[in-house]
Amino acid sequence: MKRRALKIDKLPTVRRLPAYLTILRELFLKEEQFVSSSYLAERMEIEPILVRKDLELTRINGTPRIGYCIEDLIKGIEDFLGFGETLDAFLVGVGQIGTSILYNRELTNLGLNIVAAFDKEPEKIKALIQEVPVFDISRLAELSKKIRAGLAILCVPPEDAQEVTDILVMSGIKGIWNFTSANLVVPEDVVAQKEDLASGLAVLSVKLNRIQPAHND
Amino acid sequence: MKRRALKIDKLPTVRRLPAYLTILRELFLKEEQFVSSSYLAERMEIEPILVRKDLELTRINGTPRIGYCIEDLIKGIEDFLGFGETLDAFLVGVGQIGTSILYNRELTNLGLNIVAAFDKEPEKIKALIQEVPVFDISRLAELSKKIRAGLAILCVPPEDAQEVTDILVMSGIKGIWNFTSANLVVPEDVVAQKEDLASGLAVLSVKLNRIQPAHND
Repeated sequence: MKRRALKIDKLPTVRRLPAYLTILRELFLKEEQFVSSSYLAERMEIEPILVRKDLELTRINGTPRIGYCIEDLIKGIEDFLGFGETLDAFLVGVGQIGTSILYNRELTNLGLNIVAAFDKEPEKIKALIQEVPVFDISRLAELSKKIRAGLAILCVPPEDAQEVTDILVMSGIKGIWNFTSANLVVPEDVVAQKEDLASGLAVLSVKLNRIQPAHND
Repeated sequence: MKRRALKIDKLPTVRRLPAYLTILRELFLKEEQFVSSSYLAERMEIEPILVRKDLELTRINGTPRIGYCIEDLIKGIEDFLGFGETLDAFLVGVGQIGTSILYNRELTNLGLNIVAAFDKEPEKIKALIQEVPVFDISRLAELSKKIRAGLAILCVPPEDAQEVTDILVMSGIKGIWNFTSANLVVPEDVVAQKEDLASGLAVLSVKLNRIQPAHND
């Protein structure tokens, strides 16, 4: 195991790949066979040169005047992202955010498969939400040894986040998708990624300030 | 008004600023006065040199061996992000995601102030959620002229997203925070930012594949 933090060189490209996938699957359903980088550029609202650079990551080559084979490109992106196979996951904390993730079809389409959910509220336990069983969080350690999952989606209150993370890590979970505001401490061979609405608001706020530097509407 | 798309040069830094703010406010509440870049680096899990580069954006300088003045840094980040003043917003679509945003205290702490919510479900209308009134979506055009907001948070089904966007743009909204899977068409002087869980899953999936290239657990 490497001791250095994982580095992703092409992060902005990786972030854009699911959007390409959505557009390509839509074209595939319309029985289109080829797509040009300029069409993709227009739909993605980026420059064609950037589209070509993004798609280099998939190692699928376009043909001049014909474009990219849509089926190959879908397969190439899925392979790169590891979305070809499903990604089995636990969801811990069935509150507003947790529930919205259980209902999110876009994530399911990308291969996310939530196999079990956990909560501490008695009225939520034993229910099926979108066919996912909800267990008492006290059973997390026991069940996470029995039910196989590579990923845990963390939607608990921030004050419980580290304790739950420790249990998950002990039971062999290698990836934690952190929807709490807590900064988690995990071993170096575990990936913890924070999904951070505050970051989105920060970017938006800076962009808004640039178009309206003063209150001059 | 410029015709070119807005470009943010320091996007990764901007995305990190709210996390700095959370840490700094926590220290401020503990009555700490100064903080070192190495402490911030450890909490942020990035290199100290990157912390110093990030904080250059605020134009607050640290003092060798003493560090940064916490109060100045908080003010500097707030000013840069425009978080000093509140950002008034509409929320359209009070489903799972919309509701979770209404309850998100982290966003409130960063200055987001939701002044009105809209939905088409009769049972949701006239309710107050977290003290925010919920109106019938048919009143969006009328009320968005009366109630001032710079931002709209879009949480409607994707098939309704463009229609709602058009109404919002016509009534003078300059920023749209898009939580739907739709790609929106907006005029060049309007900022539309997509908040995309699929992007987060893509990055996480690639990171996970790097630590476990095969199923060798």
